[in-house]
Parts: sequence; C-alpha cells; structure tokens
Amino acid sequence: MTENPATENPTASKAPAKDPWELPDVHDLTVGVLGGTGDQGRGLAYRFAQAGQSVVIGSRSAERARAAAEELGHGVAGADNAECAERSDVVIVAVPWEGHAATLESLREPLRGKLVVDCVNPLGFDKKGAYPLTPEEGSAAQQAAVLLPESRVTAAFHHLSAVLLSDPEVERIDTDVMVLGEVRADCEIVQALASRIPGMRGVFAGRLRNAHQVEALVANLISVNRRYKAHAGVRLTDI
Amino acid sequence: MTENPATENPTASKAPAKDPWELPDVHDLTVGVLGGTGDQGRGLAYRFAQAGQSVVIGSRSAERARAAAEELGHGVAGADNAECAERSDVVIVAVPWEGHAATLESLREPLRGKLVVDCVNPLGFDKKGAYPLTPEEGSAAQQAAVLLPESRVTAAFHHLSAVLLSDPEVERIDTDVMVLGEVRADCEIVQALASRIPGMRGVFAGRLRNAHQVEALVANLISVNRRYKAHAGVRLTDI
Repeated sequence: MTENPATENPTASKAPAKDPWELPDVHDLTVGVLGGTGDQGRGLAYRFAQAGQSVVIGSRSAERARAAAEELGHGVAGADNAECAERSDVVIVAVPWEGHAATLESLREPLRGKLVVDCVNPLGFDKKGAYPLTPEEGSAAQQAAVLLPESRVTAAFHHLSAVLLSDPEVERIDTDVMVLGEVRADCEIVQALASRIPGMRGVFAGRLRNAHQVEALVANLISVNRRYKAHAGVRLTDI
Repeated sequence: MTENPATENPTASKAPAKDPWELPDVHDLTVGVLGGTGDQGRGLAYRFAQAGQSVVIGSRSAERARAAAEELGHGVAGADNAECAERSDVVIVAVPWEGHAATLESLREPLRGKLVVDCVNPLGFDKKGAYPLTPEEGSAAQQAAVLLPESRVTAAFHHLSAVLLSDPEVERIDTDVMVLGEVRADCEIVQALASRIPGMRGVFAGRLRNAHQVEALVANLISVNRRYKAHAGVRLTDI
C-alpha cells in the first residue's frame, strides 16, 4: 500500500508548491567520476561527456585514468582521485563497495563542499545469485554521509546497466534515475544531470535513510536480467 | 552496476531455456485475500474479481468480510480468515504489518499446502515521512515463510496504489508486479494472476531473501507520491 496516512501537510497551503520538474541549468558543471575506470564509472562518464558535460574521471592511478579518458574521447579528462574531486563540481562515487569507505575517507579534503553522488551498491554473490549487504551506517550513501560530513551527499544512478551505458549503439536509455538526499537543491542538480542523458529522468525518491532499498534493488534486477536475458532498468509510473 | 559477474551458468546450455513469459492458465483458481477489508486487500479483490477470478475476502469478522464483499460485487464472497484460506487456492496476505505474525500463526492449518502471496510492507512513519522496518526474519515474506513452513510462500503486489486499485474509473493499471519466491512454478502462478489485471505484468524478481528491498521500496514511492502528487508504480525496462 503506497498511500501515506500522513500525506496531508497542514503547511502545504501556505506557499504554492514548486513544480517538481523545474530543474536547474547544470550544463556548466564539471562532473567527476571516482572509480571512473570501472565499468559503471566509464559508462557514466561516456554518457555525460556525450551529453556535453565537462567530465573528469578519477582513479587511484592518474595514468590509468588518463588512458581510460583518452579511450572515451568526447573531451573526457583523467586524473588521480584527489585531483578529479578538486576539479569537479559534482563528484560521482562509482568505486567498488570494498574500497568505498577507504576511498572516501582519503578524499575528505578535496570533497569538502562538493556535491557527492553515491551510486555504489553493496552486494554479495553466491551460487544462488546476488543479495544485498547492509552497511553498518544503513547504506553506502549513509556511509558516505558519515565519512564526508562537510560534503553534500546524495545517492543516484544505482540501476543503470554498465553494458547499455557503454554501448555506443545505444542512443537512448529509457529509465528513471532515483535521486535521494537531504537537501532539495542538491537533489535537483543531480536530477537535472540525469535528465541530460537521452531517455533518462531524474526523479526525487526520498531521503538518505531510504537509500538502502534502492541500492539493494540491484540484486532483484540481476535476477530479472538472468530470467529475461535483459538489462533491466526501472521506470516510475504515473509521474 | 546491474551486471552479475557470475551470470554465466555452465549448465545453461544443457536444456533450452523456458520462455519466461509462458505462464500457466490460472483462471480457475480461487483467490483469497486475508485482510480483504483493508484498502489494499479490497482493491486487489476488486481487480481480480473484475478480471473474472473467483475471489473470497477474509477478515477477522466474517460479518465485516461479507459486508465488504457485497459492496465490491462481481461475485466476491466474504468469510472469516480461516474459511477464506480454506476455500482459496492462492491466498494473498494483505493484513497490516502489526498483525502479520499473529494472523499467519493462527492460520497455519488452513494455509497448509496453499500458495501464499505476501504483499505486506513493514513501514514506520514519522514527521520526515516513511521508512522501512526490518523484521527479524529479514522481510515480511521471510517471516511468512518461517511461520508457514508447510505453505508455498511467495511475495508480490507491494507497489500498487490502493487508490488506483479501488477506483472504478481506472481501467488499466500500468505497472509491473515483482514476484519473489523459491519455486519457479509457484512464482509463475502469481505472475499469471498479476498479468490478468489490465496493464499489469507479473515479473519474476528474485528469491525471498531479496524481498526486503522490494517491500521497503514503498517508502520511496511514498516520497515520490508526495513530491509529484502521484500514485507512483514501478515498470521494469528492457523486458
């Protein structure tokens, strides 16, 4: 049942509601991708660069980042993770879950004040398939928020297929990007960025305390992909 | 990242894969709805009856169930929960989370051997909105499986708007129903039932250990509904 008994907001009538689809202009922002040499990071970097965004991919090794950037083309730059964070306005965290805490801790300074977008899905795999891991903080995004108290942490881009992102034959990716965070203006920047990729909509989908299930849903998408031989994504209906 | 490094199944080539959209004929099955006088239960009963399914709604009070059934029309019957379970082939559990364990425990006998479909979303609410509760067993569906060891427990119908389900002006509900369970044949019956409602597809979405995030995602849909003034549902893309 998706109705909330507490939906009635007694203060709602005081100001006209802002159009939730009215999003800021983000085309001038530089997007950094930590873990940008991995499949997911490379795919996101490719799509953002193709959409005309200035993109810097980061890696532990600046050299590897530069090599990957050159391969991607579209003006993508490569740097070590710290420089990637420094040069970017919005920093997407696409590192493997295993390195998540250590990477973010080491980047606290360059990420200060930055809009951080966590897209990491903590998952385990066994012979029955994928299953979610539950970080002590509740989710990868909440772990990022704890480790980066002076950054503006959001979560998004969990349900995208790296295969589709990276395939130059795929022109549109018809899917919604659920964006979570505590500050509306920050979420709206991430929503606007998502919406720059053809086929995608950035949709606000709750606070960070509701990030775990969004991250964990990837385990279900993996089951769907196996059964239907697909690269499943998620669309929200009625919006 | 939704790709599974372990997707390659070395035994997959031994038999041709079954078409995942080939589902059994379920039109003869009687569908019971425990908690059928609540918003969600009533809405589901209405849709299944309208689709031509024989439906029995259950309640703690047989009288209340009969009154609700009469109001629904379309041949819906009402009974107390135990009789509802006995008379049905497939039993949907749509009781409030607070009564979930006690109701199922009391119905262990009449639910023996039945295909049970849990659609309960354990949620809490505070002034920041909805957030998921985590049952000791992992999810409501897993709790049902523990409490009903001789039933065939699945999970589905979590993301449907009771408002849309109950609105006779709404002819189609364009959404996918994620179906979870351990036994493929049982999941396929539930998928086939979901697919009888115009606009809906029943999609296999994993084992019961992956039910928590599907239940919890309702907290996100509630955030979406508030922001976009909608009755959001979920569609899976690329399938």
